Amino acid sequence: MEPSPLKNTALNDMKIIKDPRQMQEYALARRVEGKTIALVPTMGYLHQGHVSLMEHARPAADLVIVSIFVNPLQFGPREDLDVYPRDFEGDCRTCEQAGVDVIFAPQMSDIYPPEFQTEVSVSEVTRGLCGAHRPGHFNGVTTVVAKLFNLALPHKAFFGEKDYQQLVTIKRMVEDLNFPIEIIGVPIVREDDGLAMSSRNAYLSPAEREAALSLSHGLFRARELFEQGEKRSPILQQAVREAIREHAGQSCQLEYLAICDPDSLEEIEQVEKQAVIALAARVGKTRLIDNTLLSRESS
Amino acid sequence: MEPSPLKNTALNDMKIIKDPRQMQEYALARRVEGKTIALVPTMGYLHQGHVSLMEHARPAADLVIVSIFVNPLQFGPREDLDVYPRDFEGDCRTCEQAGVDVIFAPQMSDIYPPEFQTEVSVSEVTRGLCGAHRPGHFNGVTTVVAKLFNLALPHKAFFGEKDYQQLVTIKRMVEDLNFPIEIIGVPIVREDDGLAMSSRNAYLSPAEREAALSLSHGLFRARELFEQGEKRSPILQQAVREAIREHAGQSCQLEYLAICDPDSLEEIEQVEKQAVIALAARVGKTRLIDNTLLSRESS
Repeated sequence: MEPSPLKNTALNDMKIIKDPRQMQEYALARRVEGKTIALVPTMGYLHQGHVSLMEHARPAADLVIVSIFVNPLQFGPREDLDVYPRDFEGDCRTCEQAGVDVIFAPQMSDIYPPEFQTEVSVSEVTRGLCGAHRPGHFNGVTTVVAKLFNLALPHKAFFGEKDYQQLVTIKRMVEDLNFPIEIIGVPIVREDDGLAMSSRNAYLSPAEREAALSLSHGLFRARELFEQGEKRSPILQQAVREAIREHAGQSCQLEYLAICDPDSLEEIEQVEKQAVIALAARVGKTRLIDNTLLSRESS
Repeated sequence: MEPSPLKNTALNDMKIIKDPRQMQEYALARRVEGKTIALVPTMGYLHQGHVSLMEHARPAADLVIVSIFVNPLQFGPREDLDVYPRDFEGDCRTCEQAGVDVIFAPQMSDIYPPEFQTEVSVSEVTRGLCGAHRPGHFNGVTTVVAKLFNLALPHKAFFGEKDYQQLVTIKRMVEDLNFPIEIIGVPIVREDDGLAMSSRNAYLSPAEREAALSLSHGLFRARELFEQGEKRSPILQQAVREAIREHAGQSCQLEYLAICDPDSLEEIEQVEKQAVIALAARVGKTRLIDNTLLSRESS
């Protein structure tokens, strides 16, 4: 009988590190050896979007570290922390296949011991969009990411553009606090029918999944209009709303829909060169986000 | 005619770096070479207390970096930012004599460009003492120190025990955010007559300086009482108040006086083993702080 490789803490050459101090000692030792480190921070339940992050990270550094940590600080009191999907064994296989060197999977109590009392906050870019609807969410994100950066000590870190406001916020934090880290945004990975990949898609019933498609379809319709020359944000937004209503009726409830400057995230009335059109919506009890970049150059 | 060495950006072998990116590149390059780095963060106008920090740092690492930056974020709107004493040439000589390798003296606009919007905050240990009287002060301290840590990338950083709450706050931030840095507290350096060294002592008139002596004398009297067996905080505090009144009358106004756990900074009613007795006071327009450790073991 063959032993399950998952009972050990190493799969082939892949290391699994749970202790934060051990993670930091490992990273410091590799840095002294002159090795470069790429970090892919995740909350696990890995899908093709995460795999794309790993594929971008793999050629970019000597070592790829994937962190898996469902960060309670970034969930609100009425959010889905308790039911957030987890599959550590599946995640290990996914990472191994993607050529990851280290999975860093710390315990909650090691990341947030009882005496923990420090917060990293970014103000302006977290004010609108998801920040307006999830108080404390981005403070939780920046705080845990600052910790992960100091533990894995990467030269480069990879974040998906699906969480666009998160990406902008992390870039802002890194520049403001002078972390010696390059932040790389990786394009959204979508299902064949357009639905943006998300661990939360696991919550959707077949009917909800069908309704959720309206979000990407709406964004695509606005992008088409933009590429045909429409600059006015209200018209572009109206196109999204209509597409969602046509496709999903009342089963898809927009939480916000905004057209923003891609760096400052300030809402803009007219898109001259570049913008991000971003939305959040409820489909049943599931909250989904999606966005797309509007760019005059690339059209 | 000999050229002034201060016109150049290097004194003997000491480097003066003003550009944050250059500071970080320098530190990264030294780390790849396997060199260890000690950082002494200061606001300049260096005195024997700072020299003591440098003397502790010198044998502790291959390279000693002293940062000189008067950090506007840690001054309140009615505080002394505009008149804070400066003497860059004198500071350079002091550092050179102490065997410092690098002075990092960044410009305000390079540390806080217009788009800057990130804050690091530590909650519980900043609540009382100076934190209660200087809203925002410690957020300013932790934010700039996080930046200095990411720019100078030290293995060890040295802070004076005179700013005791600052030392505890920095230790808390480093532990909570997992900075790979050892924080070392260095004992208070006092003038021969007991006055704790401070750049702000420069504000004192001769009469005010005499009144200010009452602070250390009060702390010493409480420490004597403690060493004679007195445990009760109210009695120890009363001894400080009386000594100040006897010595300085009304010319020294206590802002706070507290006896606290040396790690949590929570006030304690009875000192069993260890405590810090800390105070702030106004002497004329000058705000001074001082403290002393009470320790059953060391008595």
